[in-house]
Amino acid sequence: MNYVGIDLGGTRLRVAIAGAGGPIQHVVRHPTEADRGPEHVINRIVKTIEEALRHERIKPAEVASMAIGMPGPANGKTGVVLSPPNLPGWRDVPIASILTERTAIPTNLENDANLAAFGEARAGAGKGARNLAYVTVSTGIGAGLVLDGRLYSGASGVAGEVGHIVIEPGGPLCNCGNRGCLEAIASGTAIARAAREALETRARTQLRRHRESDGPTAAEVVRAARGGDALSRRLLDRAGTALGIGMGTLVNLLNPELLILGGSVMKAGGLINRPMQTSLKVSSWESARRGLRIVAPRLGQNAGLVGAVEWARLQATSAARVQATR
Amino acid sequence: MNYVGIDLGGTRLRVAIAGAGGPIQHVVRHPTEADRGPEHVINRIVKTIEEALRHERIKPAEVASMAIGMPGPANGKTGVVLSPPNLPGWRDVPIASILTERTAIPTNLENDANLAAFGEARAGAGKGARNLAYVTVSTGIGAGLVLDGRLYSGASGVAGEVGHIVIEPGGPLCNCGNRGCLEAIASGTAIARAAREALETRARTQLRRHRESDGPTAAEVVRAARGGDALSRRLLDRAGTALGIGMGTLVNLLNPELLILGGSVMKAGGLINRPMQTSLKVSSWESARRGLRIVAPRLGQNAGLVGAVEWARLQATSAARVQATR
Repeated sequence: MNYVGIDLGGTRLRVAIAGAGGPIQHVVRHPTEADRGPEHVINRIVKTIEEALRHERIKPAEVASMAIGMPGPANGKTGVVLSPPNLPGWRDVPIASILTERTAIPTNLENDANLAAFGEARAGAGKGARNLAYVTVSTGIGAGLVLDGRLYSGASGVAGEVGHIVIEPGGPLCNCGNRGCLEAIASGTAIARAAREALETRARTQLRRHRESDGPTAAEVVRAARGGDALSRRLLDRAGTALGIGMGTLVNLLNPELLILGGSVMKAGGLINRPMQTSLKVSSWESARRGLRIVAPRLGQNAGLVGAVEWARLQATSAARVQATR
Repeated sequence: MNYVGIDLGGTRLRVAIAGAGGPIQHVVRHPTEADRGPEHVINRIVKTIEEALRHERIKPAEVASMAIGMPGPANGKTGVVLSPPNLPGWRDVPIASILTERTAIPTNLENDANLAAFGEARAGAGKGARNLAYVTVSTGIGAGLVLDGRLYSGASGVAGEVGHIVIEPGGPLCNCGNRGCLEAIASGTAIARAAREALETRARTQLRRHRESDGPTAAEVVRAARGGDALSRRLLDRAGTALGIGMGTLVNLLNPELLILGGSVMKAGGLINRPMQTSLKVSSWESARRGLRIVAPRLGQNAGLVGAVEWARLQATSAARVQATR
């Protein structure tokens, strides 16, 4: 039997096929064309699946199960995508049942952050670990949780919202409407915003040359910090400190053995990592932290796609097991 | 077959017996006499088990499984108690294997907060819920987690340390050595400490009459607040607000459908609950909070004991299932 994994992002759509027990055999990539609305995107997904199957000469009946990863909030239990911010027009779309009907292949939906965590747990940096969180610090901050060896997605599929933990009550406004969320302080977007705000003051900084444009990006802040710019270092220090509090909270609540920390902001290396480690120590209980390992992800951009294939495989196996014991 | 549950606290030792599928039949209570050290306490546990079995005319061979709940840090996976603060002299005691050997009944250890959560989930306020946290706000603040219908205890058995989430970085010193932990702001101990500190200022308050003693207790602060004392209301407001941030964090990370909130501090009712609800809203993501119910526990002081019996039952059933499929 075969398994299909789909990774649907705001800009890119990818479909992967794998055989029983084997690695991914073939991947088809296309732009999502999200601006053309859900119906167009769903047609593209179906066509991309057909293209991938044709390439491997596999019939739909030879595919045991399919899984699609999408930006949250997505409810894996109901198969309904609520309203992903980077997919305009999507609102309460029952994508799992639509794809099941259009392709005749049983399809499961999961949040893409969850599937990335599941991918890293099964085939990446988390191999062998039973309790882990995979945290991505990028334009936003999200996490997927694997607890007791199983993907944990919560009562309505939105567990792992580490980006919306309040770190500074009354702090910077977050996209979610609350204030002082981790994402509003430590994400790439937040670092860039803080830099822009600092430029409105009289601070001396190398960043001033970016003033003409929309302001410096987080990557430019990192570059300036590497070049010794004091303001940029302070900005990253604040982000790293907030991140450490968030990770400390996660450690206190979940006592994981492994924390996989990825995303573009983590490329700042020690500039983020050092303040993060320091503040993690003073914001977590020693017993909960003991034995914790913090590592980088291994699958990079493929984590979600690998996770989708592995999730499809798991669903098919569980379904078969339930049928066998009936 | 029969099952034995043990609840060992700093002051009280309780042993309960239940038959297959039935409720608790008999409970024996004794003081722990913790000050006389681990060997003495272990002898008392064994004698109390024997007393309970004798009363019910049950032989050790007729007991399928036993579970003991103890103050954390306790590692359920290894059966070793690390160093519970209210049991002097206990350090890395392999209590599960000691009791198994002394009684000839297979024994499992679990953190008492975890077993209280498990008890409420199986037979109390959490019946029917698959994802819940049972949070106790008392002299300390702790939580037990039931996720996807299973007790979740983390990599080393100390998950659910909600009391050590940092709410105010750099805030009041906590027993754990860190600053600004939820427990250092919202526990009964913290409320009493804040009242004592406030009395050292010139604040006008009904609490001043308690100045001669060790200062007001948390219960006295609640009483004064009910009587309209502004300072006392502010103290509870601060505690409730911090508690709401902690609960918001828990909701963001775990997306539970149910939060069971108990412990002596919650007896303050609306004085704690109102600020808690307000701050929970501004510190959790709407999608993670939607559908959440917050309720009081139902089993009271018996949650841990009921949980221990149910845990013993589950361990015996799982062991039987593993043997059957071999």
